[in-house]
Amino acid sequence: MDFSQLLLIPIIAGIVGLILALILYFRVKAQPDGNETMNRIATYIREGAMAFLVREYKVLSVYVVIVGLALFLSLGVMAAVSFVLGALLSLLAGFFGMKAATYANVRTAQAASSKIKSKALLVALDGGAVMGFSVAGLGLLGLGVLYFIYSQSPELPTVLHSFAVGASSIALFARIGGGIYTKAADVGADIAGKVIEGIPEDDPRNPGVIADNVGDNVGDVAGMGADIYESMVAAIVSAMAIGLTTHLDQIKNLVTDMSAGEENLRWFAVALPLILSALGLFISVVVVLLARMLKNSSPAQVLRNSLMLPPVMLTLVAYLVLPLFGISQNVTIALASGAFGGALIGLVTEYYTAMKPIRQVAEANLTGAATGIIRGLAVGMESVALPMFIVVIAAYFADQALGLYGIALSAVGMLAGTAVVMTVDAYGPIADNAGGISEMSGLGSDVRAITDELDAVGNTTAAIGKGFAIGSAILTVVALFSAFNMEVNHARLNAGVAALSLDLASSRVLIGILIGSVLPFLVSAATMMAVGRAAQKIVTEIARQFKEIPGLLQGKSEPEPAKIVDIATQAALVEMILPGLIAVLSPVIIGFTLGPAALAGTLAGAMAVGATMALFMANAGGAWDNAKKFIEKGGLVGHKKGSEVHKAAVVGDTVGDPFKDTSGPGVAILIKVMSVVSLLLAQLIALIG
Amino acid sequence: MDFSQLLLIPIIAGIVGLILALILYFRVKAQPDGNETMNRIATYIREGAMAFLVREYKVLSVYVVIVGLALFLSLGVMAAVSFVLGALLSLLAGFFGMKAATYANVRTAQAASSKIKSKALLVALDGGAVMGFSVAGLGLLGLGVLYFIYSQSPELPTVLHSFAVGASSIALFARIGGGIYTKAADVGADIAGKVIEGIPEDDPRNPGVIADNVGDNVGDVAGMGADIYESMVAAIVSAMAIGLTTHLDQIKNLVTDMSAGEENLRWFAVALPLILSALGLFISVVVVLLARMLKNSSPAQVLRNSLMLPPVMLTLVAYLVLPLFGISQNVTIALASGAFGGALIGLVTEYYTAMKPIRQVAEANLTGAATGIIRGLAVGMESVALPMFIVVIAAYFADQALGLYGIALSAVGMLAGTAVVMTVDAYGPIADNAGGISEMSGLGSDVRAITDELDAVGNTTAAIGKGFAIGSAILTVVALFSAFNMEVNHARLNAGVAALSLDLASSRVLIGILIGSVLPFLVSAATMMAVGRAAQKIVTEIARQFKEIPGLLQGKSEPEPAKIVDIATQAALVEMILPGLIAVLSPVIIGFTLGPAALAGTLAGAMAVGATMALFMANAGGAWDNAKKFIEKGGLVGHKKGSEVHKAAVVGDTVGDPFKDTSGPGVAILIKVMSVVSLLLAQLIALIG
Repeated sequence: MDFSQLLLIPIIAGIVGLILALILYFRVKAQPDGNETMNRIATYIREGAMAFLVREYKVLSVYVVIVGLALFLSLGVMAAVSFVLGALLSLLAGFFGMKAATYANVRTAQAASSKIKSKALLVALDGGAVMGFSVAGLGLLGLGVLYFIYSQSPELPTVLHSFAVGASSIALFARIGGGIYTKAADVGADIAGKVIEGIPEDDPRNPGVIADNVGDNVGDVAGMGADIYESMVAAIVSAMAIGLTTHLDQIKNLVTDMSAGEENLRWFAVALPLILSALGLFISVVVVLLARMLKNSSPAQVLRNSLMLPPVMLTLVAYLVLPLFGISQNVTIALASGAFGGALIGLVTEYYTAMKPIRQVAEANLTGAATGIIRGLAVGMESVALPMFIVVIAAYFADQALGLYGIALSAVGMLAGTAVVMTVDAYGPIADNAGGISEMSGLGSDVRAITDELDAVGNTTAAIGKGFAIGSAILTVVALFSAFNMEVNHARLNAGVAALSLDLASSRVLIGILIGSVLPFLVSAATMMAVGRAAQKIVTEIARQFKEIPGLLQGKSEPEPAKIVDIATQAALVEMILPGLIAVLSPVIIGFTLGPAALAGTLAGAMAVGATMALFMANAGGAWDNAKKFIEKGGLVGHKKGSEVHKAAVVGDTVGDPFKDTSGPGVAILIKVMSVVSLLLAQLIALIG
Repeated sequence: MDFSQLLLIPIIAGIVGLILALILYFRVKAQPDGNETMNRIATYIREGAMAFLVREYKVLSVYVVIVGLALFLSLGVMAAVSFVLGALLSLLAGFFGMKAATYANVRTAQAASSKIKSKALLVALDGGAVMGFSVAGLGLLGLGVLYFIYSQSPELPTVLHSFAVGASSIALFARIGGGIYTKAADVGADIAGKVIEGIPEDDPRNPGVIADNVGDNVGDVAGMGADIYESMVAAIVSAMAIGLTTHLDQIKNLVTDMSAGEENLRWFAVALPLILSALGLFISVVVVLLARMLKNSSPAQVLRNSLMLPPVMLTLVAYLVLPLFGISQNVTIALASGAFGGALIGLVTEYYTAMKPIRQVAEANLTGAATGIIRGLAVGMESVALPMFIVVIAAYFADQALGLYGIALSAVGMLAGTAVVMTVDAYGPIADNAGGISEMSGLGSDVRAITDELDAVGNTTAAIGKGFAIGSAILTVVALFSAFNMEVNHARLNAGVAALSLDLASSRVLIGILIGSVLPFLVSAATMMAVGRAAQKIVTEIARQFKEIPGLLQGKSEPEPAKIVDIATQAALVEMILPGLIAVLSPVIIGFTLGPAALAGTLAGAMAVGATMALFMANAGGAWDNAKKFIEKGGLVGHKKGSEVHKAAVVGDTVGDPFKDTSGPGVAILIKVMSVVSLLLAQLIALIG
């Protein structure tokens, strides 16, 4: 049987995803966009967000040129081209998705002002889906085309790894830069507005409010998009890389009978990750269309079901279809372990950031901010355990089924619903922005009630989405790590050198582990300080405006939001460089000086610390955030908004801002980037040390 | 040449240490103990501390009996006896040292009231030295005697490992229980007194003040003592274990020529760690006597020099003496790398908790508690890097000199000054208590000025001491980890089974790493929550007393401090059990179910996360603490004690309390206990999986 026409499936899936994204984009743009005030505010936000993207992309183009050149000189022209392609598609997805999101926000507000909740929900969801299907479609299209061209070439691994490094690099800077931007603006506007001047959130007099809304897009749409695009690409590439280099004995359980021959077995192992991801995209299309049909259910229902459906459908379809091609159910086991593992991690995250622990954090604020913060930290620490154990169990089943290749497939399974997860993630800031625009244009409290409900739902599902993102990052890193080790030994074997001992008892590996364990802390420290510094500057500028612009506090004159946007942009672009370089250069430096064994140790140490720190920071931040909201909704009798207890909770919420949206995601992307870069380096450093 | 008389050196050193401790104990007790009020308060503190120790020891005796029985059944009578001995000596050191500290506190206050600072310094220093030399003396005596008896027995490894497990177990519970006690009392008394009732620190009307002072002894004397005793024992045992099992090729650089024969080489490798520690004790005696002679210098000078002298003297003596016995200077290199590494880590800790970063944390409080906390977290995160790199560099040099055995010797070198480090550590709470007693007995501000200076010096050196403790813990864990791996393979070799692959690329090891990375977070979460819960109970009880005891707030009637002491004791004893069991049982469960490869991975993961988290939490806590003190001393012009900025800094200080004194040390001891228990298990689980 000739399977080669199957190679077209990922390409077709990519194109289908992009066409859907395009259709939804125009649907969103065709919606009514409200009155003049709304449009002015929305334009501020859109222009601020786009200005940030353009300036960020300029900085990144320098990086892309330098690294591209380095790759051209060390690994040849195709490495450079693939790297640039991987980066470019990420930028494209970010650009397109953010454009859609910044059209959708004001149109969601306008739909809400027509009082039909389902219509508002749909606009926000469509806006998010543009990002969702851009990300998944471009990822599949890029990898699919490269594989189509290079499937028989010895350059295939280099091409794939370079593509992944391109994707990772952009994700790294977009995530960290976006994270610094969004939280600097958020913390700065909050402290200057709510704490110092005593005016409410999203008040149009506050010069920082526009920057805060821009930040939502920059961080949670563009940054998150690049991050998830990277995870999907990295998961697929690591599985393909393991498929390419693993011993055939290790994957003989992939097919139901070996009569097809070894050649076909290898072929399957390499092509399967792409084809299964394509399957995931088709399923995502169905899920998003279903969600549109069910738009009259409660928004919470619609979003939750969307997140829980893909694992079920993927498992079912794999179970029914794979045997037709002679592929064993071991593949289904590996896929399902990841897909359900991801969903479970999402639910655990929801528990820690929305249920009983939130009440406990809120109550701890009764004796002051300190006890509230202690409790939030403790909740965050405790929340590390279950997701990690879920990853361990998923990895265990996948390993039993198909060895390390199975673990990589498990990551592919976890990320099969990428388009849906990203849709829901991008929905959040659109709904949030819609609320901000309603408030700033004075659309009235009944409109605000609708946008508030949409926003609240977005917050809960954002927690699930974040859990997903970090869980998949961890599993992807495990897979990448295995791929790196195989790649090194593959290169050594080809050079006639003995396989490398990565024994934990060797001092090289041990030293690597100790070095690796430090890197997540350095990146966290750098990003936390960056947010603090930038927020400080914004507070100063807002205070200046309130002091120097006559009548601003009385609402008689206009603030100058562009200045705040500029400060946040400038700070983000400068401050993202150091943590970014730590991530990219540390594997290079360690690999070329201490060799592959130390680098493997470094990856292991960084993985152990990075995975747990990312979960800790994300969930502690989420817990403080929602504890504050719990108090605002009247959860603690006698302690309303504005009370001492509420003020204490605000302190926790503010500490949590850079935790959950800057440093936590920054650490997760750090370990992915380190692993991807190491994978690319593997053949260059295999013989060192 | 017959070296066997050298075996008496550790025993003699141990006895010398104990005699010195005894002499100092009686010297302290012979000092004048002040007026009736002072004695009443001091008695409260002493009785509270002793009552806690007695109740804690009762709980621990159950544990010792159960584990002793398990060891008797699995490894024989000598394992059980050694285990009990290791535990008993730790308890003895804690008992004796705390007795001395609780006599020294009031006598220091009395000496201060005679206005001669050097006299007060001396009493506090002598009180600390009792603990210092008890810890070092009992450790050396116990190990020395066991080695003297069993040096030729095949049971030697089991005996040594069991002794270390005994020491570790007590350290674990003493550290965690003591940590919970001290911070629950501290946080509870502070919130109830300073925040709610608005009365100053150490005010005699506050029913929680006695418990707070008891806590200083329970945590920083007894807990710290057991911890450092354990580190010393574990470092020596791991070096001896590696010496026993390593291939002779690996340690042939130990001697200057091999003519003495292989037998002597092995003998040297095993005996050297004990003999070098004995050398460290003799040097410590000299250093403490020197400090007494220099008592008229500034207290800061005296303490700093004491901490910095041992590495210099140890290196010098080793360099001059070792060649006389045909031992190579490689040993000096390994020792010096650890000894100077420890001192450097101490200085780095001092930088992060006392210098520029403190000012930055203090200034971050200008925009509120949230920014102050963010900055403190960032400082703590950044502070992880240098100590870890110092450990890496120390390990690198030691490894170059003598392989993994060298790394273990490096840990021995770092802990050679144990007696001095412990003296300085125990000095801290004595000076702190002296201040409390002066305040509560109304000794006047000039007396308080002297105790305040002694206390402030104690705080700075405490930071250095803590850095030392964590640094040595990390290096010890690296050594223990290597010893475990060797022990497993030694057992497999003896059983005729192939050496175990601890390859990072194996899924067993990877799964172990992920599991291990979670455990420090679980222990942190459990201890943070324990402090929060217990503090809450104390706040409630203090509020009750202020409400129900007529005239208490007016100072017309007496509080009931015993009730607070009881609550703290009860909470500490109950809450220490869960984290304690996690530490002891996790290696047992993982070892017997998933086997030694997964356990090695678990240790590696726990080490990576535990080492960095311990540094992060200790230093963030220290930074907040000293930022608050910086503001109190007028470091921020216009923002004195009681200002909004100061209040914000108090929030950070309170969050930092469980960070630096409960969870941070708890995590450090966790990874030591896990490693020691694994080492003991090695031969039992070597063939599993």
